[in-house]
Amino acid sequence: MKTVTLLGLGRMGAALATALLRAGHAVHVWNRSAHKAEPLLALGARTGTLEAVLAASDLIVVNVLDYGASDALLRTPEAQAALDGKTLLQLTSGSPRQARDAGGWAARYGIAYLDGAIMATPGFIGQPGATLLYAGPQPTFAQWREVLLAFGGNPVFVSEDFGGASALDSVLLTQMWGALFGHLQAVAVARAEGIPLDTYAKHVRAFQPVVDAAGADLVARVRDGRDLGDADTLATLAAHYSAFVHLRDVTAQHGLHAAIPEAFDRLFRAALDDGHGGDDFALLARYVEAGAGRGSAKEAA
Amino acid sequence: MKTVTLLGLGRMGAALATALLRAGHAVHVWNRSAHKAEPLLALGARTGTLEAVLAASDLIVVNVLDYGASDALLRTPEAQAALDGKTLLQLTSGSPRQARDAGGWAARYGIAYLDGAIMATPGFIGQPGATLLYAGPQPTFAQWREVLLAFGGNPVFVSEDFGGASALDSVLLTQMWGALFGHLQAVAVARAEGIPLDTYAKHVRAFQPVVDAAGADLVARVRDGRDLGDADTLATLAAHYSAFVHLRDVTAQHGLHAAIPEAFDRLFRAALDDGHGGDDFALLARYVEAGAGRGSAKEAA
Ligand SMILES: NC(=O)c1ccc[n+]([C@@H]2O[C@H](COP(=O)([O-])OP(=O)(O)OC[C@H]3O[C@@H](n4cnc5c(N)ncnc54)[C@H](OP(=O)(O)O)[C@@H]3O)[C@@H](O)[C@H]2O)c1
Ligand SMILES: NC(=O)c1ccc[n+]([C@@H]2O[C@H](COP(=O)([O-])OP(=O)(O)OC[C@H]3O[C@@H](n4cnc5c(N)ncnc54)[C@H](OP(=O)(O)O)[C@@H]3O)[C@@H](O)[C@H]2O)c1
Repeated sequence: MKTVTLLGLGRMGAALATALLRAGHAVHVWNRSAHKAEPLLALGARTGTLEAVLAASDLIVVNVLDYGASDALLRTPEAQAALDGKTLLQLTSGSPRQARDAGGWAARYGIAYLDGAIMATPGFIGQPGATLLYAGPQPTFAQWREVLLAFGGNPVFVSEDFGGASALDSVLLTQMWGALFGHLQAVAVARAEGIPLDTYAKHVRAFQPVVDAAGADLVARVRDGRDLGDADTLATLAAHYSAFVHLRDVTAQHGLHAAIPEAFDRLFRAALDDGHGGDDFALLARYVEAGAGRGSAKEAA
Repeated sequence: MKTVTLLGLGRMGAALATALLRAGHAVHVWNRSAHKAEPLLALGARTGTLEAVLAASDLIVVNVLDYGASDALLRTPEAQAALDGKTLLQLTSGSPRQARDAGGWAARYGIAYLDGAIMATPGFIGQPGATLLYAGPQPTFAQWREVLLAFGGNPVFVSEDFGGASALDSVLLTQMWGALFGHLQAVAVARAEGIPLDTYAKHVRAFQPVVDAAGADLVARVRDGRDLGDADTLATLAAHYSAFVHLRDVTAQHGLHAAIPEAFDRLFRAALDDGHGGDDFALLARYVEAGAGRGSAKEAA
């Protein structure tokens, strides 16, 4: 059992602290708003000034809103001196660039640095299936791996490049936002059409395997460059679009926010205008990669 | 065992015809491009002129690209006379309005009409879990239900309103496009960041239960009006946005198509500008429902 310090006790930080306590570690916590420590103190955590909790452990875990908040706490002469010779694990969401910059900063102050990304919402923390991604020196990861298991049963070492965990995080969250914003638009259409949201929820669950299979097929086709229409194409761009126009129309008819359907429409039309109606949905990846005005001259106009 | 006619032998139509044949029905098929009938003739289907196949069965199923293509085939004096007294099942994707219009047209010509929507890609057709949605007169659905089981083990009667199946279809496809366009953007970011797509595919699979739970939570919160931040909020809008800005930045940095991130950004910023940073992601539903320039004065500016 180890001694671990955790800075930040928001929704996620509180779940991380609880998981460390459940695993039997000695835990020192600190939060800007001190009252959030109380439930954790009741579970056996200790608290103190920032200076005191930084001194208390060899592993310091940070989980605050963003790197700006984290930097304000840690990029001070006092904190840098306190962290010298210790391991800092940054679990705050950030960009690959911020992670790399933090790695350089840590090296200058003799701090062993790991940059992590949490592929879980608070309720999944501590579960066997929960994944956290880590980037930084492999030996540092190996040294703390047992402790990190408290956060989730699937700690994944991504790369020695400090930005690796955060890059993969951004990519996975991108797909998540697609799914969640899809729900938002769908829910708005459902309500406008008088479809109860329980009916929607039931059917969306039943439809999930079809959507998952279509997603897996899409990724495999982009990977292999199989984006032209072929015998295994599930649905061509023309078939997708013949159904899609109704989403666009129903969005306009009910005065719903059109930003999301318009974004999809721009990509669909760019490919259709270039004559790709008979091709696979995966072909749209070319247009996303090329950027507006580069993949298709027509679309830029 | 019944006699069924199927018009349209594209990817989906061929799967539907095969499923009918597998279930032991006598099947008459027709397709604009006649050669697509050949594999089905080898499985025991029969074909002929449009007039002949319309005459051959009491149930006519249509699955062509869109209602325009279907209308060109069926809204002729000859076809209307041939369909008199029979059941027409429209499985072509369309809007609720088109389905209602078709219901009116069918009534004028003495045609029993069902409007369906296929919540499956071709490979799922005939599987126990495959869902097809049906709208129209309940007795007509009941009369043909046994035959419809050939298409998938979960035939769902949605409503007597002819537009009901198509409305639910649009809603479910909306979520599907969210997930699929999310994959497209994610794949583009992954490739730009040097993340192999097999790595992406593996992690996206592991992350799926988290995304599904977040989606279910979102729908339940919108249903119940629980969209302000509370103790059970998984992640606030501010926490989402602190991670989201990196998708926006990485998209710009690599020159990827920004339509999708920009659409999400508009909705996020509308809510954040109105001071909803501490509220639940579900609160964005208000902005989708209100439309641009109505939910938030600032966003319209
Ligand atoms: N929630 C999730 O599902 C989830 C999933 C994966 C990753 N994450 C990431 O985890 C991090 C925290 O998310 P959360 O959901 O726990 O957010 P949260 O509930 O809003 O908590 C934010 C935390 O950051 C602290 N903070 C904000 N600004 C600060 C500042 N200037 N100085 C010091 N502390 C500051 C807050 O302190 P106060 O209590 O004093 O306000 C609080 O401890 C974010 O980077 C988020 O992207 C969250
Ligand atoms: N594929 C899916 O995963 C899926 C899922 C759910 C619903 N759907 C819906 O099912 C329908 C068919 O999709 P699909 O994937 O099978 O498309 P597809 O493979 O492109 O086939 C299109 C079919 O429509 C016919 N067609 C097109 N224009 C026509 C016209 N003017 N006159 C007569 N026939 C015409 C084509 O005939 P030719 O062979 O002569 O071109 C072909 O039989 C669409 O409404 C689609 O939205 C498809």
